[in-house]
Amino acid sequence: MNAIHTVALLAVAEYVAFSALVGRARMRGRVMAPSTSGDEAFNRAFRVQQNTLEQIVAFLPALLLAGRYFPPALVAGIGAVWLAGRLLYRQQYVRNPASRAPGFILTLLPTVVLLLMALWGALGAQAAP
Amino acid sequence: MNAIHTVALLAVAEYVAFSALVGRARMRGRVMAPSTSGDEAFNRAFRVQQNTLEQIVAFLPALLLAGRYFPPALVAGIGAVWLAGRLLYRQQYVRNPASRAPGFILTLLPTVVLLLMALWGALGAQAAP
Amino acid sequence: MNAIHTVALLAVAEYVAFSALVGRARMRGRVMAPSTSGDEAFNRAFRVQQNTLEQIVAFLPALLLAGRYFPPALVAGIGAVWLAGRLLYRQQYVRNPASRAPGFILTLLPTVVLLLMALWGALGAQAAP
Repeated sequence: MNAIHTVALLAVAEYVAFSALVGRARMRGRVMAPSTSGDEAFNRAFRVQQNTLEQIVAFLPALLLAGRYFPPALVAGIGAVWLAGRLLYRQQYVRNPASRAPGFILTLLPTVVLLLMALWGALGAQAAP
Repeated sequence: MNAIHTVALLAVAEYVAFSALVGRARMRGRVMAPSTSGDEAFNRAFRVQQNTLEQIVAFLPALLLAGRYFPPALVAGIGAVWLAGRLLYRQQYVRNPASRAPGFILTLLPTVVLLLMALWGALGAQAAP
Repeated sequence: MNAIHTVALLAVAEYVAFSALVGRARMRGRVMAPSTSGDEAFNRAFRVQQNTLEQIVAFLPALLLAGRYFPPALVAGIGAVWLAGRLLYRQQYVRNPASRAPGFILTLLPTVVLLLMALWGALGAQAAP
């Protein structure tokens, strides 16, 4: 098993699932395209997807580049926190957006840690991509 | 020719072109920043770009990681469906957002197939990134 | 030092910082989730982050794939223009959105150049990812 690829792909799968749930909320709430504003259930599902989009764009490069410089098990383990944090984030946001902090932090934190690890590795590398 | 890189870069080019078309619609409709809501032509162009953004974030990692485990011609061929699907999506969305399903499915489907292929490959890999 | 990885990671760090500034503006302006519309300071911070998201999604693949075919110092140097352009973009946008053009162009242009370089490289490559 390539643990880093697996975590990266599960993150993408999580994001695709959140996107599909926006599509479902769009149909249920009869929110017609191109509008992205509807009933509260749609608005929450949409913001969960958008925030996951905002975060995955930083998470994936940090994860994959950290994996170039650090042991796969360590990098994948930190990445797994992100996977769990996002599930928590969605679950809490859909119930009550004001309670979203724990899940938010559990995805922001692994991203920042992986980003710093990758930067550390890249700055100390021997050249060549 | 590196077929997978070519498909990945054409997808980015398509997305950059869609973004440029939002800029044009912004000027024509005199939609002043930071607003992202304007006349119907702007709103449609904007949602096409946003949806392409939402999709390319899943498509590119799925495409590039599937390419680590499967023959380039196969992976690039599936990716080419995405390229065509997005063009269809934009063309239909701009005319009538309610008719966007075929183009939408022709980009979602290749992404999901590549994602499953990549996951299959990553789970069966011999370790090491 | 791996110059291309360093530029890629600094771009992600810049984007994460812009995202954190949206969080700060959200608290200061008391913009309650799931809303993404608030006072002018929030709206500008939010659009800066969103536009950086829209751009980094094209920039990172173009940068990393151009790095497969061209000398790291050249690719990283072009990428560094992006880093500076985004800082300028944010600074000017926050002050007056109508003055955002120079920073915008200084990020769009390096992206387009890297994209064309990467495409050129991918089309002329000897096969194999």
